[in-house]
Amino acid sequence: HAASNHRRPCHTMDKSITLPPDEIFRNLENAKRFAIDIAPSDKLYEISVQEEVTARLHFIKFENAYIETCLDFIKDHLVNTETKVIKATVDKEDEMTCLIKGCNFVLRNIPHEAFVYAKHADSEFRFQTTHPDIFPYLLVNIGSGVSIVKVESEDKFERIGGSSIGGGTFWGLGALLTKTKRFDELLQLASKGQHTSVDMLVKDIYGGSYGSLGLTGDLIASSFGKSATADKEFSKEDMAKSLLHMISNDIGQLACLYAKLHNLSRVYFGGFFIRGHPVTMHTITYSINFFTKGEVQALFLRHEGYLGAIGAFLKGAEEDNPNQYSWGENYAGSSGLMSVSPDMYPMQRARSGTFDMLEMDRLERQLVNLPLLQDASSYIPDTVDLTEDAQAREYWLYCFEEALDGVVKRAVASQPDMPEAAERAEKFRQKYRHKLQTLRHQPFAYGSLTVRSLLDTREHCLNEFNFPDPYSKLKIIIVSSLVERPWLVDSYDQWLERLKGPPHKCALFFVDNSGLLSRGTEVVLASNSGPALNDVTNGELQILTERIAAMDPVIQDGLKEDRLTLVQSGSSSPCLDLSRLDKVLAMVVRERQTDLVIIEGMGRAIHTNYYAMLSCESLKMAVIKNSWLADRLGGKLFSVVFKYEVPADKADEDSALLTPS
Amino acid sequence: HAASNHRRPCHTMDKSITLPPDEIFRNLENAKRFAIDIAPSDKLYEISVQEEVTARLHFIKFENAYIETCLDFIKDHLVNTETKVIKATVDKEDEMTCLIKGCNFVLRNIPHEAFVYAKHADSEFRFQTTHPDIFPYLLVNIGSGVSIVKVESEDKFERIGGSSIGGGTFWGLGALLTKTKRFDELLQLASKGQHTSVDMLVKDIYGGSYGSLGLTGDLIASSFGKSATADKEFSKEDMAKSLLHMISNDIGQLACLYAKLHNLSRVYFGGFFIRGHPVTMHTITYSINFFTKGEVQALFLRHEGYLGAIGAFLKGAEEDNPNQYSWGENYAGSSGLMSVSPDMYPMQRARSGTFDMLEMDRLERQLVNLPLLQDASSYIPDTVDLTEDAQAREYWLYCFEEALDGVVKRAVASQPDMPEAAERAEKFRQKYRHKLQTLRHQPFAYGSLTVRSLLDTREHCLNEFNFPDPYSKLKIIIVSSLVERPWLVDSYDQWLERLKGPPHKCALFFVDNSGLLSRGTEVVLASNSGPALNDVTNGELQILTERIAAMDPVIQDGLKEDRLTLVQSGSSSPCLDLSRLDKVLAMVVRERQTDLVIIEGMGRAIHTNYYAMLSCESLKMAVIKNSWLADRLGGKLFSVVFKYEVPADKADEDSALLTPS
Repeated sequence: HAASNHRRPCHTMDKSITLPPDEIFRNLENAKRFAIDIAPSDKLYEISVQEEVTARLHFIKFENAYIETCLDFIKDHLVNTETKVIKATVDKEDEMTCLIKGCNFVLRNIPHEAFVYAKHADSEFRFQTTHPDIFPYLLVNIGSGVSIVKVESEDKFERIGGSSIGGGTFWGLGALLTKTKRFDELLQLASKGQHTSVDMLVKDIYGGSYGSLGLTGDLIASSFGKSATADKEFSKEDMAKSLLHMISNDIGQLACLYAKLHNLSRVYFGGFFIRGHPVTMHTITYSINFFTKGEVQALFLRHEGYLGAIGAFLKGAEEDNPNQYSWGENYAGSSGLMSVSPDMYPMQRARSGTFDMLEMDRLERQLVNLPLLQDASSYIPDTVDLTEDAQAREYWLYCFEEALDGVVKRAVASQPDMPEAAERAEKFRQKYRHKLQTLRHQPFAYGSLTVRSLLDTREHCLNEFNFPDPYSKLKIIIVSSLVERPWLVDSYDQWLERLKGPPHKCALFFVDNSGLLSRGTEVVLASNSGPALNDVTNGELQILTERIAAMDPVIQDGLKEDRLTLVQSGSSSPCLDLSRLDKVLAMVVRERQTDLVIIEGMGRAIHTNYYAMLSCESLKMAVIKNSWLADRLGGKLFSVVFKYEVPADKADEDSALLTPS
Repeated sequence: HAASNHRRPCHTMDKSITLPPDEIFRNLENAKRFAIDIAPSDKLYEISVQEEVTARLHFIKFENAYIETCLDFIKDHLVNTETKVIKATVDKEDEMTCLIKGCNFVLRNIPHEAFVYAKHADSEFRFQTTHPDIFPYLLVNIGSGVSIVKVESEDKFERIGGSSIGGGTFWGLGALLTKTKRFDELLQLASKGQHTSVDMLVKDIYGGSYGSLGLTGDLIASSFGKSATADKEFSKEDMAKSLLHMISNDIGQLACLYAKLHNLSRVYFGGFFIRGHPVTMHTITYSINFFTKGEVQALFLRHEGYLGAIGAFLKGAEEDNPNQYSWGENYAGSSGLMSVSPDMYPMQRARSGTFDMLEMDRLERQLVNLPLLQDASSYIPDTVDLTEDAQAREYWLYCFEEALDGVVKRAVASQPDMPEAAERAEKFRQKYRHKLQTLRHQPFAYGSLTVRSLLDTREHCLNEFNFPDPYSKLKIIIVSSLVERPWLVDSYDQWLERLKGPPHKCALFFVDNSGLLSRGTEVVLASNSGPALNDVTNGELQILTERIAAMDPVIQDGLKEDRLTLVQSGSSSPCLDLSRLDKVLAMVVRERQTDLVIIEGMGRAIHTNYYAMLSCESLKMAVIKNSWLADRLGGKLFSVVFKYEVPADKADEDSALLTPS
């Protein structure tokens, strides 16, 4: 999908803001469809662009001060061409529909989209695994006012409640109280204030807690209660903080009550009051925890600010039936969480023309869970969460930085006929290095940081500069010579014992860059849909298998009799996410009654899926080709992992089968 | 109970406020027990005094500016005597307990305590009949903050929710925004403001309604939303109004959600934010109607401001087991709803030393429902609600005013041996005339205005000035000569027909000033516990019956064989409230399997109970001795009402019994 990315000269917007080269609207002339989300009271505008050739969605957020400049730019460069359509979500009915459509879209398509915010934890952001069934949920949208929407299915939602005390109230009352007209500045004030000098606390009334009613002394009894009679001036900071608490607590309580009343456990918060502001996420989270005693978690969305634009785009693209595809976040083209947060970068925020971007790549097929997962809802592909494990994060970031020179060289070498490859490779280097630097400071930028995400980000950056397959000239089948047994993880004896039993019905084989196996068992070979590192792609495997079949009658018969099937996995990563697999693969797995899953390679069996629990027998095999990792796992470089696992409920049944007692 | 009211010379408080003579603390030296409710953040103090001799509770509300003067006064006059105890509700735990105790007390003991507020209706206040079972209910107490309390029984309550956005927030934010420091002035400002100039409405955003979400154009989308960006000054009035709406709507929504979540349909609102302020009652009512679409009604309490003091008193008097008694509101000593309302009397409110009073008389026995009521919860004693029927109100107020001279004369004549009787009678005249004037302007002052309440108020005022029984010298048995049949209401033939059937098991006879009946049936004679007009009291009836028995062997045998029983009704009114009857009477009615209730006299059968539905046969008999009323009912002066009724479910059964088909 990334093969046709065209390079364009940088565009400079003629009025007041300068758009960074290679970032904004870089493929604008290729765009097929536009959607602009102009929320009447919000202060950011989102523009989405769909590129025709690459099947990629671009979303860009502007501050509304630059909307005219931006529209002029679009007009000059796009609208005069004939194929373009401008679709704006100004229709009343559509606003909420767009929001919900967008929300469903990101929840379904972007892993680690939702997160819990914990200000004082080691990692502020705790990302949630995407639940296979996203419905029902509650969306609390805090714009000028608050809308509380119950979403039951793709097309069924209801505004079950709302409140007039929202972002506009914080802004409006805040402006009146502090004479500060800017929303972000009000939040800045609030983050520096002490609400206790304005609010009347329980202890201010009772001298301590009110134990019999379960009220602690520090609880706010009356927001702004002290300013009722006290004859003194209150600081702007304190008043802003008190206001923030008042509004957040109120919304928190309303959300909890509606969640309880409708029996909903997932509550997502969004709207410009929340958008990227740690201080509001914190107060909302605190409020929810207080009111539900932990029963309900406040969830936020990484791309909450794009929901309206995404929904508007989806509405406009309905004839294309966009839900028949899957989409993936492009880490190269997306700016990541908190990139424009006022708390993170107060100066950047104040600068004119700040923007935030999201790019989504379309996969032509639907991605689903591997039907053989023991519990899809608790499945986590990644073995180590680098967001939480600071030591591991440090190592891997260093590791990928060290490897960068080699990757750049390989990229140039993969395109010997293209003279500008060196220049592009240099741009790739800069981009990926910048990403690594960003991730060092904001490991949460794209959800949980993992070895897989670091690998994927590198792939995306390579694609970005037209190096879709740097290994294309280098792929060879390497049969590594194994170290002596006993291996680091060694279930080989149990596996051999198992082989004495009845043959498996069907084995699913997630291949990386080598290997092939056959017994009486049907075999499904699942390989990458797109290139990643030196992993074999489905296309390559097709050719390879045909060549082998020409030499090997077992393979030939297998193919002929349909006992050997090649299927694409749906992935273009050296790692493997069993919750995002090609729908056809899932179908084949079910139809063939697959009872053995073989996962091999470091990316698929160590970095990911090492702890994955399957509902059938599984074999995870890898040679650890990284000494730090080997050390961490208690082994040496080139340690072998051979992990044969039988699910607990099958173990008894199988041992009865295998051991005639 | 009122026979021992002592007259005291007027007291003048020595510091700053002058207490009106004969109103405040008039029986202070007789006081047995004090309770003072000092809510930490509220601005009114309540003092309750229990008189030992008269078993009467006095509650007085002061503005806190005068608390010291008041305490000094109490100290000087009371605390130095030995029998006095000062009990203050400063204990943390007690505050809420007192509030709930007080609430239970008024709901159980004061008819028409709760009301619905409807600003634009003919009568603003729609009083609720006291439900026999007051539990469960929700109490939303809006002081500085908001406490939402679920009350399940006398001793079981739980604070299920609350909010920091309460009266203190209105006051505190209001003070910051308008520089107005007085709560009442803020409400005055609010009542004159236009919230639409400050709030962002749905139509301000969408140009009209947002139909698909069910949001009308005038709905507030964002409180203070317009002040976020608009570069202009907002008027104090408009900001105060917007603030009031914001807070009321928020509390309304929270109350509705908690009511739904806990399945409660009765929600009472109280606290200083509400207390007597039409503007807050209106906004809260509006909000509740909006959020529940009429499913839940916002209820307010006439004596909400006294709950803490009443509860404090009850706690202090627990050794007396105050719940074993019944209590009645004394109309003479209570100042009535809205007497100090800022909207009604802005000037009075601003005056120093405004106060509000409640007096409750203790009845030594418990009052209960007549067990023979078809549906106790829907029973309404009064035939005409003068609060709603302006024409009838006009007439009866005129009527009672006209009759005042006669009553004064009769009062003086009833105490020929007391030379100061004339002076007291004059004071009675002034007091009752003032009450009638008040009721002309505020017919809602003591609940629904009725002929019964006008009569009762007159009795209370007479008692107040030591005329407990002006008719004591005049009571005679009058047998009126009846007009020719057919009467105005004439079921006489049906009744005669009924008499041909089997005799009733037991008849309950509510006597007024004459009559007595006997057949094979057992007879229970229920007469007033205390004097009212010329109605025979239980004590008098005892003597009377003994005298008749000496002459009449039927009566003599009846008394001897326990077939004729004299029981007090529990009432001291010329009217009859079947939901507040002596517990012993109810017991006798049940034990004797009473199957006939006879109610006679205008007060008991016309002014009240004319439409009362009983679960057994009933006979309502009266001669209409008032030409206006006769006219209204379609008859003439001295028209006879003879209303024989059989409940629908008994009618078939009985007709089968009586008419051998």
